[in-house]
Amino acid sequence: MRAALLAIAAAPLIMAQAPAALTADEIAAKAPAAHWLAIDPDDIMVMDSAAGRMVIQLAPSFAPAHVAAIKALVREGRFDGGRIVRVQDNYVVQWAARPDPLWKPAPLPAEYERPAAGLTFTPSPYADTYAEAGFVGGWQAARDSKAGTVWLAHCYAAVGVGRENPPDTGDGSELYTVIGHGPRHLDRNIANVGRVLSGIEPHAALPRGSEAIGFYKDEAARVKISRVRLASQIAGFPRWQMMDTGSASFAAVNTARANRTGFFVRPAGAADLCTLKVPVREAK
Amino acid sequence: MRAALLAIAAAPLIMAQAPAALTADEIAAKAPAAHWLAIDPDDIMVMDSAAGRMVIQLAPSFAPAHVAAIKALVREGRFDGGRIVRVQDNYVVQWAARPDPLWKPAPLPAEYERPAAGLTFTPSPYADTYAEAGFVGGWQAARDSKAGTVWLAHCYAAVGVGRENPPDTGDGSELYTVIGHGPRHLDRNIANVGRVLSGIEPHAALPRGSEAIGFYKDEAARVKISRVRLASQIAGFPRWQMMDTGSASFAAVNTARANRTGFFVRPAGAADLCTLKVPVREAK
Repeated sequence: MRAALLAIAAAPLIMAQAPAALTADEIAAKAPAAHWLAIDPDDIMVMDSAAGRMVIQLAPSFAPAHVAAIKALVREGRFDGGRIVRVQDNYVVQWAARPDPLWKPAPLPAEYERPAAGLTFTPSPYADTYAEAGFVGGWQAARDSKAGTVWLAHCYAAVGVGRENPPDTGDGSELYTVIGHGPRHLDRNIANVGRVLSGIEPHAALPRGSEAIGFYKDEAARVKISRVRLASQIAGFPRWQMMDTGSASFAAVNTARANRTGFFVRPAGAADLCTLKVPVREAK
Repeated sequence: MRAALLAIAAAPLIMAQAPAALTADEIAAKAPAAHWLAIDPDDIMVMDSAAGRMVIQLAPSFAPAHVAAIKALVREGRFDGGRIVRVQDNYVVQWAARPDPLWKPAPLPAEYERPAAGLTFTPSPYADTYAEAGFVGGWQAARDSKAGTVWLAHCYAAVGVGRENPPDTGDGSELYTVIGHGPRHLDRNIANVGRVLSGIEPHAALPRGSEAIGFYKDEAARVKISRVRLASQIAGFPRWQMMDTGSASFAAVNTARANRTGFFVRPAGAADLCTLKVPVREAK
């Protein structure tokens, strides 16, 4: 039997004399401290559910009003007792705050993109189907140079705010994360407010919902959310960091992802935006 | 609460006067019979496991020796009593034939790409990060015009043959399917031999393995495969069809996927190869 699709063991004999190139993980492990950015604990949302703990980073620089609304919901404890309401295969896991018919959310602006001014955009070296692909301060992003706008990309583990049809913009009480092929057609159509830093796996492994677009039919199927807090509210919560996407280490990570060695007989020579995941870690 | 991320209900009021464009699903439903291709029941593998039934189409025109080897394993019943051995988040589900130390597989050629000659390649209208993206006779594929080669693309639900490091090519006794963002860097590095037609959902929802690259630690965690047969061996098994990727209907499906309406305030105007899934269906 074949033990591995992606063998990470010994290099093959035919390559024994070439020095082994570092993998993306090895480059990240060796990156100097200056190539990492601290993540503000007030931008981290910690969701505990029957499926496990999911640690989510919010992106206030891209969706300030949505992030402020979500943080207010968290501080008010409105996600405690909420449910995971939808799991659609190759698409999203979606969860909702505890229902409260008395809650009247304020309308939010359509923060689907933002001005490029004030941001450092590092272009991806590789072609993109959808836009100009690149990175901004630790995030996978895209831009329209002519319009002068930038937005976060819908890649695996991106977190957004569910909404109905336009001109509605969502109110932050229903969030989703991507668990399939990056649905980049959602870019600039919905508020992309962050990403999962850790704990997506048991959520991506939840049973798919039986109803249209993956909604669960019965309350019993909906995983209960016990508690959602900001990391800043949890004493001793680990500090998290993201790699600075403007750093030489991140450029090297991207090159390694585009030119994999070992198992790979023919490196792709490129990698798409959603494959160029930004390394994140708990600070040592 | 927001009911839907992707509302598929009524069109929004602001668009009420424009004629609604057909969705990809609606175009497929209306496509004339001539735009569908029959799938040979001898190219369909039906896998029954404790997770459910998965129907897989094999692609003998791309990996003839691998597909012949897999079909021989199926006819010999070697997958019966096999196990799902690996589930890696955002990557693959992998399963293995029943272990048999006496089985000595014949070496297989590295069928990672094939000559373009004799194939009709319909280019995707949209840019691709990795190669020239397009379609061949009902499959998502890519090509190198200069080298005159074509290969199947590693998109969600693609099925390939696990292998160790080069120059090994796998023997067909261990297969995987993609359950995450399309790992196109695997293209031309491993034998891509088909795709899941139906039943991937409960497999994509299996618990992720705790060991390196998602292998399960304990035999108890490995889902048991009860039986794998070719559709041609199962009396009364439904006939399957795939849309002819050279047809006008498929071109219209692609255009619809690139220019979504209703929920979408800003159609992407493009769609990447792995998003341009080829419609398949049970024949009526």
